[in-house]
Amino acid sequence: MHTQSAVLGGNRLVDVVTEALELGRTAARGGRCATYIPELANADPASVAIAVSTLAGEEVALGDTAVRFTLQSVSKVFALACVLQRGDPHLWERVQMEPSGDAFHSIVRLEEEQGRPRNPFINAGAIVVSAHLSGSDGKARIEALRQFLRRASGSGVARFDVDEAVYRSECVTGFRNRALANYMKHFGVLEDPDVAVDVYFRQCAMLVDVAELARTGLFLANAGEDPITRNRLLTPRDNRTIVALMATCGLYDEVGRFAVRVGIPAKSGVSGGVLGVIPGHMTVACYGPALGPAGNSLAAMTMLEFIMNRLSLSVFEPR
Amino acid sequence: MHTQSAVLGGNRLVDVVTEALELGRTAARGGRCATYIPELANADPASVAIAVSTLAGEEVALGDTAVRFTLQSVSKVFALACVLQRGDPHLWERVQMEPSGDAFHSIVRLEEEQGRPRNPFINAGAIVVSAHLSGSDGKARIEALRQFLRRASGSGVARFDVDEAVYRSECVTGFRNRALANYMKHFGVLEDPDVAVDVYFRQCAMLVDVAELARTGLFLANAGEDPITRNRLLTPRDNRTIVALMATCGLYDEVGRFAVRVGIPAKSGVSGGVLGVIPGHMTVACYGPALGPAGNSLAAMTMLEFIMNRLSLSVFEPR
Amino acid sequence: MHTQSAVLGGNRLVDVVTEALELGRTAARGGRCATYIPELANADPASVAIAVSTLAGEEVALGDTAVRFTLQSVSKVFALACVLQRGDPHLWERVQMEPSGDAFHSIVRLEEEQGRPRNPFINAGAIVVSAHLSGSDGKARIEALRQFLRRASGSGVARFDVDEAVYRSECVTGFRNRALANYMKHFGVLEDPDVAVDVYFRQCAMLVDVAELARTGLFLANAGEDPITRNRLLTPRDNRTIVALMATCGLYDEVGRFAVRVGIPAKSGVSGGVLGVIPGHMTVACYGPALGPAGNSLAAMTMLEFIMNRLSLSVFEPR
Amino acid sequence: MHTQSAVLGGNRLVDVVTEALELGRTAARGGRCATYIPELANADPASVAIAVSTLAGEEVALGDTAVRFTLQSVSKVFALACVLQRGDPHLWERVQMEPSGDAFHSIVRLEEEQGRPRNPFINAGAIVVSAHLSGSDGKARIEALRQFLRRASGSGVARFDVDEAVYRSECVTGFRNRALANYMKHFGVLEDPDVAVDVYFRQCAMLVDVAELARTGLFLANAGEDPITRNRLLTPRDNRTIVALMATCGLYDEVGRFAVRVGIPAKSGVSGGVLGVIPGHMTVACYGPALGPAGNSLAAMTMLEFIMNRLSLSVFEPR
Repeated sequence: MHTQSAVLGGNRLVDVVTEALELGRTAARGGRCATYIPELANADPASVAIAVSTLAGEEVALGDTAVRFTLQSVSKVFALACVLQRGDPHLWERVQMEPSGDAFHSIVRLEEEQGRPRNPFINAGAIVVSAHLSGSDGKARIEALRQFLRRASGSGVARFDVDEAVYRSECVTGFRNRALANYMKHFGVLEDPDVAVDVYFRQCAMLVDVAELARTGLFLANAGEDPITRNRLLTPRDNRTIVALMATCGLYDEVGRFAVRVGIPAKSGVSGGVLGVIPGHMTVACYGPALGPAGNSLAAMTMLEFIMNRLSLSVFEPR
Repeated sequence: MHTQSAVLGGNRLVDVVTEALELGRTAARGGRCATYIPELANADPASVAIAVSTLAGEEVALGDTAVRFTLQSVSKVFALACVLQRGDPHLWERVQMEPSGDAFHSIVRLEEEQGRPRNPFINAGAIVVSAHLSGSDGKARIEALRQFLRRASGSGVARFDVDEAVYRSECVTGFRNRALANYMKHFGVLEDPDVAVDVYFRQCAMLVDVAELARTGLFLANAGEDPITRNRLLTPRDNRTIVALMATCGLYDEVGRFAVRVGIPAKSGVSGGVLGVIPGHMTVACYGPALGPAGNSLAAMTMLEFIMNRLSLSVFEPR
Repeated sequence: MHTQSAVLGGNRLVDVVTEALELGRTAARGGRCATYIPELANADPASVAIAVSTLAGEEVALGDTAVRFTLQSVSKVFALACVLQRGDPHLWERVQMEPSGDAFHSIVRLEEEQGRPRNPFINAGAIVVSAHLSGSDGKARIEALRQFLRRASGSGVARFDVDEAVYRSECVTGFRNRALANYMKHFGVLEDPDVAVDVYFRQCAMLVDVAELARTGLFLANAGEDPITRNRLLTPRDNRTIVALMATCGLYDEVGRFAVRVGIPAKSGVSGGVLGVIPGHMTVACYGPALGPAGNSLAAMTMLEFIMNRLSLSVFEPR
Repeated sequence: MHTQSAVLGGNRLVDVVTEALELGRTAARGGRCATYIPELANADPASVAIAVSTLAGEEVALGDTAVRFTLQSVSKVFALACVLQRGDPHLWERVQMEPSGDAFHSIVRLEEEQGRPRNPFINAGAIVVSAHLSGSDGKARIEALRQFLRRASGSGVARFDVDEAVYRSECVTGFRNRALANYMKHFGVLEDPDVAVDVYFRQCAMLVDVAELARTGLFLANAGEDPITRNRLLTPRDNRTIVALMATCGLYDEVGRFAVRVGIPAKSGVSGGVLGVIPGHMTVACYGPALGPAGNSLAAMTMLEFIMNRLSLSVFEPR
């Protein structure tokens, strides 16, 4: 495994990240916050933050690092990890592993594929994953996910509280997701669509800051083991499954362009958070609620592109 | 950059490949040759071959290495490289960079996307790429591609002849591709659909053996430069574009599962050939005309999975 | 307006219907009852009944006329009439008037058309219509529909009770319809998806026999006025709207073939009931729970085809 | 059968048509000529003409009756009649009889339906019909159609010449139709896509004026027999098939609204011609190249709606 210094070459990590942040702030000016729920529209579109956690234990966080934001679709990565960790034998009978080529909320393909979603990172697939979290009711399932997240974060200060306002906002507007859930229930892919959607809304509304996010995802860059605490969160095989799915399905309808421009596995959310994973090296968590046309944070895209190119960390290049 | 020995650890490359070949031969028994043109159906479904070329110049080729097969869709990688090499400024206005989620020959998405194909590796996109090969007629364009291939192969014995029987077979049966081309012409994405399709049929019918294929693709694993001759074929950026698109769009509707199971950029063809690229290390070319349900060579899938797992070469893991 | 005798020529109506019934009994042998809810699967596939009501007041009912069956999709005609009768100004902003070309339960087209269903006779459209029935809750809306039906039936013995077993069966299995309703709620086309679906399930479960059905639909053949009681149910324009939509959208994906073979406006339901309307002449109600591949009653199709051809009543021919 | 006078009541036909023409001229102001081929864009958008032919032999033609226009999609009706007349046993294996719910040129549904078009009045279906015209080459097939048309027209002065400029315009722009034809060839539904498309382009470019069109279609209103010459063009059953398909598939994506508003079988073309058929009574041919959003002549829609309502000729009402 590379050492951190080998990756950086002559660069100081903090210098590269500082430069990235400046570019991110400029990029953010061109975008707009998500508006589909009022709570997201209230975010400050000029906010930008970035945090890096390395396998060697180095941590850098710059920008508006005090801003807490909801995980939204980034939660899908951790919910999947939480389900794989306990070894559910039926999950992959109910969710596929292929990019969809459609918008994240599309219901079209579900019809032709008999209710089995294309991958765990489109909404339909994530709702199925949430239904596989252990627990007899929604509260227990969210608690199981929170325990997993706390363990992954090194059991430090991160609390992963649910932002009740965002959660309630989702509850009164999330009819498209309810449609997906009822549709999958029709095909026998879900048991209880109401509970599954409720858990999904809660996990999406969990709060983090960039430093917590980068730290919590660090096991993904280390074959499933937290490199700091040596806690094993996932088997190497399950961990690789998640990382491979991030690379092929993690940025909705921008996944191909992101692979070309940035070249790392990543997962984005509409609140403006993005988690990037560089296997063997580090994680990078970005925040910037101003989104581009494909629904991804403009600041995050720009910062990740800059860092990966500067440090030659694309997984599609020799390094 | 890693040295070869670092990758292999205690393994001898030839031993790993030999073991892979045995597994490939077994896997081939479960599949069937493509039948959509008679010439492909005549292949021996039991044939299996594999070749590895490393950046350090090591070459291993085992199995039915004398069998020559047509490139089919693997040619799409080289045609794209050939077009990017001369710096066409309009190509990406006419082809997107996203996985399609559809079958390789689907015409459905073209309608909603106004004739601009999803990526250069589905048939529609590859036909657009072929139309951008330089040359005033079809013959000149194929010659331009052949020159590129010969240069990439180290200008050795590889000739990249067109298998005339396969080419003629395509000509009399390829109406779906003609439909795609005429449809794109309607949207102004193509100039001359007949010529574009003819070039495409010829490039698909070019003959190689596994050793030639592994050697010819080696620049893709080395940021665009042939590590043996030191010829630069592509800029690092254009090379990375191709490799990233292989990872996200290279195996049609099996690309996600392949990323999970094998974890390397690759491109397959219906003749049973597959080219895998491990950036910084090597290429692996496989042949096995017995295909699985998704249209990919069963032997190739199995051999690539075995080698990448044994040598921990997945790009989605620390290595 | 034609008199009945002019239509019949030398035929006695009862003779023609008797002959039709025999053919219907034979045809029923080739079909199967709907199975998607257990209650429908319990019907006797050999049951066949037919009733004719003429504008002149003649009534003929033959076969298993005592069998009561649930209206299912035939209820969509009456719910639409009930809503049009009170002059809702917004209905046609929320439902289109075009054949869909898709299966009756398809959700695909709703996505591209922003939640506005193609016509009031596919499930999604019918759910929107049900939401426009007057009344502050589901019970009041069903009661409004029942009052309309009783008035249309001449206020005789027909009660239009809800079959509670069928209704409950729908409630525990109707997730596809719930998906449609939630999806339309997302697009703002529905207010309360749960109530709309509940009303829809209840109207589908209303019980009739063939004589009641033929009599209740008679206003549709007479420009909106009951020819017996002289009650006006609808304006001629609204009545014509319904009849035209029956002709173009009334038999799902068999509407074109039905127009060719039979040539009258009609509406079918999965319980095996069909209501045919011959403007200026009569209605024909058929029952036969054995369905063909397109989900329409085989006995009904056969009986209607025979009668319309024998009496030259197709609206697409001189008569 | 009604006599003409019974239909008209106290109205003089010429007065109703005169009033319709005035309304048509006003309506034409809101539309635009088709622009997809230059020749159509050159039409005068203010031109409006109308002709009525009755079974009793009455003929009325008003407005810009000297304007000759190309049949375009109206030709599909006559090509279908010409093929049915000679009793092709395989036609209905290759074309369906259902409304498509899609735009007239859509290729999407062809994929899921294995190349068998939805009905003979969408472009794909019409190309299949043209391929079934008798004759060993394209010229012979067009001549067969012309002979049919001349016979249907009463063998008077109508010549049905091909407008060479329009034909050539189609040839150099009709790539979408070529895509459809090649796609159907792929599925084995067509033999020779190039010839089929060429015949189709020629039939679309045949010239008529409104009086010729109304007269030529008169057999459609009379169960397949020309009421003037007593020539039988089609069996009653084949004639009814065509008329029923006009009612359910004749106005593309406006067929349902047209049934509601106007209520007669009709077929429109992008040149602005429309042929309406009132079984047992008359035909009405309209011309007005200014089209509305659904691609149908605004003047024609308005004139037909006015006349059918004034004379209560909708087939969906008592009359």
